[in-house]
Amino acid sequence: MSFDEIIDRRGTHCAKWDMMEKLYGVPTDDGLAMWVADMDFKPPQCVIDALQARVDHGMFGYFGDDSKYRAAIQWWMKERHDWQIDPAWIFTTHGLVNGTAMCIDAFTKPGDGVVLFTPVYHAFARVIEAADRRVVECPLAVNDGRHEMDFDAWDAQMDGSETLLVLCSPHNPGGRVWTRTELEGVAEFAKRHDLILVSDEIHHDLVMPGHTHIPMAKIDGIADRLVMMSATTKTFSIAGAHLGNVIIADETLRKTFEKRMNALGLSPNAFGLFMATAAYSPEGAAWVDDLMAYLAENARIFDAGVNAIPGLKSMPLEATYLSWVDFSGTGMSREEFTRRVQDDAHIAVNYGPTFGTGGESYLRFNIATQRSRVEEAVTRLKAAFADLQ
Amino acid sequence: MSFDEIIDRRGTHCAKWDMMEKLYGVPTDDGLAMWVADMDFKPPQCVIDALQARVDHGMFGYFGDDSKYRAAIQWWMKERHDWQIDPAWIFTTHGLVNGTAMCIDAFTKPGDGVVLFTPVYHAFARVIEAADRRVVECPLAVNDGRHEMDFDAWDAQMDGSETLLVLCSPHNPGGRVWTRTELEGVAEFAKRHDLILVSDEIHHDLVMPGHTHIPMAKIDGIADRLVMMSATTKTFSIAGAHLGNVIIADETLRKTFEKRMNALGLSPNAFGLFMATAAYSPEGAAWVDDLMAYLAENARIFDAGVNAIPGLKSMPLEATYLSWVDFSGTGMSREEFTRRVQDDAHIAVNYGPTFGTGGESYLRFNIATQRSRVEEAVTRLKAAFADLQ
Repeated sequence: MSFDEIIDRRGTHCAKWDMMEKLYGVPTDDGLAMWVADMDFKPPQCVIDALQARVDHGMFGYFGDDSKYRAAIQWWMKERHDWQIDPAWIFTTHGLVNGTAMCIDAFTKPGDGVVLFTPVYHAFARVIEAADRRVVECPLAVNDGRHEMDFDAWDAQMDGSETLLVLCSPHNPGGRVWTRTELEGVAEFAKRHDLILVSDEIHHDLVMPGHTHIPMAKIDGIADRLVMMSATTKTFSIAGAHLGNVIIADETLRKTFEKRMNALGLSPNAFGLFMATAAYSPEGAAWVDDLMAYLAENARIFDAGVNAIPGLKSMPLEATYLSWVDFSGTGMSREEFTRRVQDDAHIAVNYGPTFGTGGESYLRFNIATQRSRVEEAVTRLKAAFADLQ
Repeated sequence: MSFDEIIDRRGTHCAKWDMMEKLYGVPTDDGLAMWVADMDFKPPQCVIDALQARVDHGMFGYFGDDSKYRAAIQWWMKERHDWQIDPAWIFTTHGLVNGTAMCIDAFTKPGDGVVLFTPVYHAFARVIEAADRRVVECPLAVNDGRHEMDFDAWDAQMDGSETLLVLCSPHNPGGRVWTRTELEGVAEFAKRHDLILVSDEIHHDLVMPGHTHIPMAKIDGIADRLVMMSATTKTFSIAGAHLGNVIIADETLRKTFEKRMNALGLSPNAFGLFMATAAYSPEGAAWVDDLMAYLAENARIFDAGVNAIPGLKSMPLEATYLSWVDFSGTGMSREEFTRRVQDDAHIAVNYGPTFGTGGESYLRFNIATQRSRVEEAVTRLKAAFADLQ
């Protein structure tokens, strides 16, 4: 399997390629889909083989005995993140939007404030508001072209109505791998304001060479208020499986969460369980290493191209495949730079403002696609903004 | 494909076969798994082909554009149940335990009474209690060896704290296909006591030749308090896909339900969507007809065998593949007849009391398995109760 292999996903009920014309007006026949965080790569062969084995067996009934699945998760966290977990700490949610939503449902009440460090993954605000909780935005600073935390400013904002914080680590968008000092700051912030800390670490495996992700669970003194979230779906290009790991060491928090899981009758689909078990393996790990080397080169090419256009500036990706590009230097209105990207370059991207305060002048580009498409995107962007050069 | 084909499901993470030793003490090597409602048949070839096509494509990302999926559900309800729905009425939950739980979550408050006509599918009570609502049992009568409703008795029980009723139609266990008169009675009962009516019709396709299921939605005057539930998973032997159809015609109820779906961030897995779309088709329909002919003969053989044992009496199956067998005529204790079935006959079954009041002297046998296994079950039961003959 080569990451360079072009796979035509059009006409396959693929959200990323089949919905871009409807949602963004980017034509299906000529467009480049660089929006939703879904990779254009096949998963590791071991994952495909696991599903093929189910097809060959021909039976698709209720899944029984998830001990191998739990053991695989345990192995992965230890092997890849030096984090020792107990299989009994694991809940399987229907992806991590559901995982986040379940935390909000289990640990907060209507009217409570839920803190987000913005700009941040847009679905957080969506589920918070749908649950009649309030989004409390703590804007990230931008220093030296990258996001940084600003606890002094955020402390001044808190009014005591906040009960939960959703951290995105590594950060989406912007691609920060938070340092130990920053994570300790988050832990202190959560303690100072008595917040449950939900650490969405869905990008924890997608870390660029030279950077190291630190699981929040490895920060001292936070375990009694911590919910950890991760997933195979993002790492291994199996988003359609809709599985998330919610891992809770604290017994009180775990029992509260479990009660809501039981009350909502949530059970994971068998396909996802088989695929996830296969993915969290040495073969899966080797694939992730290859993937990250490929994505690092994609990022280098994309950044070099984008940053050569006067007025455009991408944040350096320490993790994720989601390039966060600031168009403020163009002096253009948001409508104008967006129009050029969509209507002239025919690239479908995520709009900055959907990520909350701080995203106004940005667009998010998904570079988890074939190298030739990344190069084509750069060529198109250069042409769309040729008058600036 | 032949329904007679023996498929060894042991060692495949199959809940039904791989968990029976742990849960029931029935040995894996010699046991007959006749408990959880999961069929030992492959789904129709069109369903397997749909999944094989996904494996061949090799991409498993976010699913986009569910219009064909919704159209397939619409077609099925019209074609098979003479029920006209609007695709916009459909929600896809993670199976119908989750669907039931979502209804309880959306339409009731902690402390509310939720009415069940018992004995009934055990997961209803489980999610009601996990959600801190109260189970209000309305026991079904047994007349001429089958379950019947008893509205006069139930009216006397209601105290005004009840807000929702979960109907099982066709009924599990006991296999009743409720008549129009009975369904009209349920509608009147729901109106009289101001109950939201959740009609779980997951067995609506599994109706024995000569019987006709009437969707509750076709009963006049109930639409403004009705939630309809059905699924491909039960009908087509794809329980592992964990998908349920929750269909709500009433706009007010629909918006309330939708708000909870959004707040919980629930999205269906792609595998289930592809398989369900393939299943709700003419090929799927032909397969169901063949299936029901096969199950009818299984039921005939099982009933003839069981009812030949003095003291045992099975309810005649009008629908479902779940034979509900009364052991009260043996004069034995529950422990004794259960011991003989499990420990002597090595058959894993569901215990009657888990279905609530009225189930005390019963065991539930799943006969959706190969004919030879049904015959073997009869042989073993005859031996286990040989002293009565």
